[in-house]
Amino acid sequence: MKILVTGFDPFDKDIVNPAYEAVKKLPNRIKDAEIIKLEIPTSFERSKIAIEEAIDKYSPDVVLSIGQAGGRNDITIEKVAINLIEARIKDNDGSQPLDTTIREDGETAYFTNLPIKGMVSHIKENNIPATISYTAGTFVCNSVMYNILYLINKKYNNIKGGFIHVPFLPEQAAIKNPIPSSMSLDMICKSIELAIEAIVLNKQDNKLVSGETH
Amino acid sequence: MKILVTGFDPFDKDIVNPAYEAVKKLPNRIKDAEIIKLEIPTSFERSKIAIEEAIDKYSPDVVLSIGQAGGRNDITIEKVAINLIEARIKDNDGSQPLDTTIREDGETAYFTNLPIKGMVSHIKENNIPATISYTAGTFVCNSVMYNILYLINKKYNNIKGGFIHVPFLPEQAAIKNPIPSSMSLDMICKSIELAIEAIVLNKQDNKLVSGETH
Amino acid sequence: MKILVTGFDPFDKDIVNPAYEAVKKLPNRIKDAEIIKLEIPTSFERSKIAIEEAIDKYSPDVVLSIGQAGGRNDITIEKVAINLIEARIKDNDGSQPLDTTIREDGETAYFTNLPIKGMVSHIKENNIPATISYTAGTFVCNSVMYNILYLINKKYNNIKGGFIHVPFLPEQAAIKNPIPSSMSLDMICKSIELAIEAIVLNKQDNKLVSGETH
Amino acid sequence: MKILVTGFDPFDKDIVNPAYEAVKKLPNRIKDAEIIKLEIPTSFERSKIAIEEAIDKYSPDVVLSIGQAGGRNDITIEKVAINLIEARIKDNDGSQPLDTTIREDGETAYFTNLPIKGMVSHIKENNIPATISYTAGTFVCNSVMYNILYLINKKYNNIKGGFIHVPFLPEQAAIKNPIPSSMSLDMICKSIELAIEAIVLNKQDNKLVSGETH
Repeated sequence: MKILVTGFDPFDKDIVNPAYEAVKKLPNRIKDAEIIKLEIPTSFERSKIAIEEAIDKYSPDVVLSIGQAGGRNDITIEKVAINLIEARIKDNDGSQPLDTTIREDGETAYFTNLPIKGMVSHIKENNIPATISYTAGTFVCNSVMYNILYLINKKYNNIKGGFIHVPFLPEQAAIKNPIPSSMSLDMICKSIELAIEAIVLNKQDNKLVSGETH
Repeated sequence: MKILVTGFDPFDKDIVNPAYEAVKKLPNRIKDAEIIKLEIPTSFERSKIAIEEAIDKYSPDVVLSIGQAGGRNDITIEKVAINLIEARIKDNDGSQPLDTTIREDGETAYFTNLPIKGMVSHIKENNIPATISYTAGTFVCNSVMYNILYLINKKYNNIKGGFIHVPFLPEQAAIKNPIPSSMSLDMICKSIELAIEAIVLNKQDNKLVSGETH
Repeated sequence: MKILVTGFDPFDKDIVNPAYEAVKKLPNRIKDAEIIKLEIPTSFERSKIAIEEAIDKYSPDVVLSIGQAGGRNDITIEKVAINLIEARIKDNDGSQPLDTTIREDGETAYFTNLPIKGMVSHIKENNIPATISYTAGTFVCNSVMYNILYLINKKYNNIKGGFIHVPFLPEQAAIKNPIPSSMSLDMICKSIELAIEAIVLNKQDNKLVSGETH
Repeated sequence: MKILVTGFDPFDKDIVNPAYEAVKKLPNRIKDAEIIKLEIPTSFERSKIAIEEAIDKYSPDVVLSIGQAGGRNDITIEKVAINLIEARIKDNDGSQPLDTTIREDGETAYFTNLPIKGMVSHIKENNIPATISYTAGTFVCNSVMYNILYLINKKYNNIKGGFIHVPFLPEQAAIKNPIPSSMSLDMICKSIELAIEAIVLNKQDNKLVSGETH
């Protein structure tokens, strides 16, 4: 089993991005799975290309992307990606699309086909706070998740894919005012490893997991 | 032009629901439009039936549903409804479905076809805080929004539909601990009236409007 | 009975301040009390002078100051003022003292001698969210409250004094991103009137009122 | 130099308290200072006795108490303790005093005499989020801080004393809903060690440090 794990480079005013910092510290094997690590740019256009090229190159069984959701308290595993870009800031190429679809021939949204309830349960059983999120936003994170699921839907039906949002690192939080929530790099890294374990074990869970559910 | 506006009855431990409280105070005409007001039950099953019956009965041009999103600071106009129920509490019929689709033959998600950026702008120009939201949750609110857009997609292609979430009323907030954000009934009611004005005028806006956009 | 009620002028990047906006809408009499309204500058130095001059001029029985606490969800009545200035931004005179005492011969802190639990209860019984706060901050609001209580302690033993913090107005919140909590001007104004009623009636309450109490 | 560091036992519905968990992992020496570790009960009455007995027994140069402030995002070093108990829940002896002074012959409040700005700076320079707080609440934490500073003021003029509030542990946060902010035990422990280093070095800082400063 081969798992491609991507993390973004830094964007906005931050000089690190917990996403790729955590990805590059992952072990090279988790349970039976080989872990392939890839840094992708916080760019709508180049991340789209990078994802497709990496799938072609590595033929992974699973594509899991990691991104930063500054301000969230815990690890949030995304349920759904939507066919929309509404960029609140410029990406790293200076591009800021508004009210734009990601893929003209794509569906309005795709649900992840990863066992996200089992992933959340497995992380929480190991004492790390995690929930399911029902919005990946409208910036590059959502766009990458959408592109992964679009490609799975159109071309790579045997692949599983999904997205995990992680909090700020403490060093990022320490220099903001007011100080937002954060999580240590070790804990973020451990949570991704646990999420991957749950994927490899295909751990299912049908119970209610906490999360924003108006 | 005929606009059907629905609001929920109270649920959980609350004895009022700002949604229908505001709806019933709306004027009977807004600009050129006739306003039809309907209370719907906070029940997955009965709200689904109520929406379809009301569309058949009134043949509205627009269906706008209003629900409470306790804890949010402002008026939030929803972009998307997803084909999922994940009920954190029982509905008013004692039903609590988990990990269930709303409509087996429905799409993963539908975007609203209302001019939501124009609606947000119009509300804000009148000094009431408003944003677009990209998650209507996974409880009865999302379910009602999904059912409206599903019906529009399948049967009533000329209808427009959407959903607005409103904060707690001050009287609800005052008895919670810690005290959450709230908005006065007059202001909630005014914001719905302004949203409807923007619909009637088909007010468009392509600028960025603030909102959670990771 | 004579009650001097003060409110600040706008500061930082805001063009209104809910404090004086609400104060100037108060009735001229509340129960048996005559209400004297005074706008004071968001300036450490000039507010100090303005408060003392107003006490000398009007000989009030009660001095109640109103200030804005942007981001709070509800009306917060302050328990304590501390002998410290730690200005996060410049005041309206361009002054930004750090780690400075307000009065060299003053105590470390003064508790208000107003019936604040009764005031909170009276406001909440009228369906407006309110709590007690145990920090008035370290900017001009705390400084004015401290100066009032210092003067009461040193010279005007028969006067009662205190401070109420109020949320942003909706029009202020609407143009910030992310949008913070707010309260309508009518409701802020009503809450001050209710607080004054409780003072005039000397309404006592010994129950627990909600509030941040680590 | 001898530093007495105290941490509370668990209270309310939690089965651990990050305060003493962190204290017991501290090294026995930090720079030149000997560290004496003491668990104290979350009880108004018994913590008061425990603090005074420990000062008599160990004759420390510094008394630093650590407590949990559930919900805060970062390490918060307290500036001020007030002569008030307003217990939102029962302490571990079943006692819940309301509107009660801690010491009849005590001042309204005491400021810590520790170099708290230097402590905050030192922690932040080491990439851990920290701020100054201007309220230690009205429960047992404030009470312990008040008692330490009262004793310093009345009897032990050469001692320095203060209080640090720490966030929930991840394992506490993981089982709450909604999930609050948390910090890893290692990082909490490290931050206390850094705070003690700044005390030993008597590190001063006069710059503005971030914090709630209305």
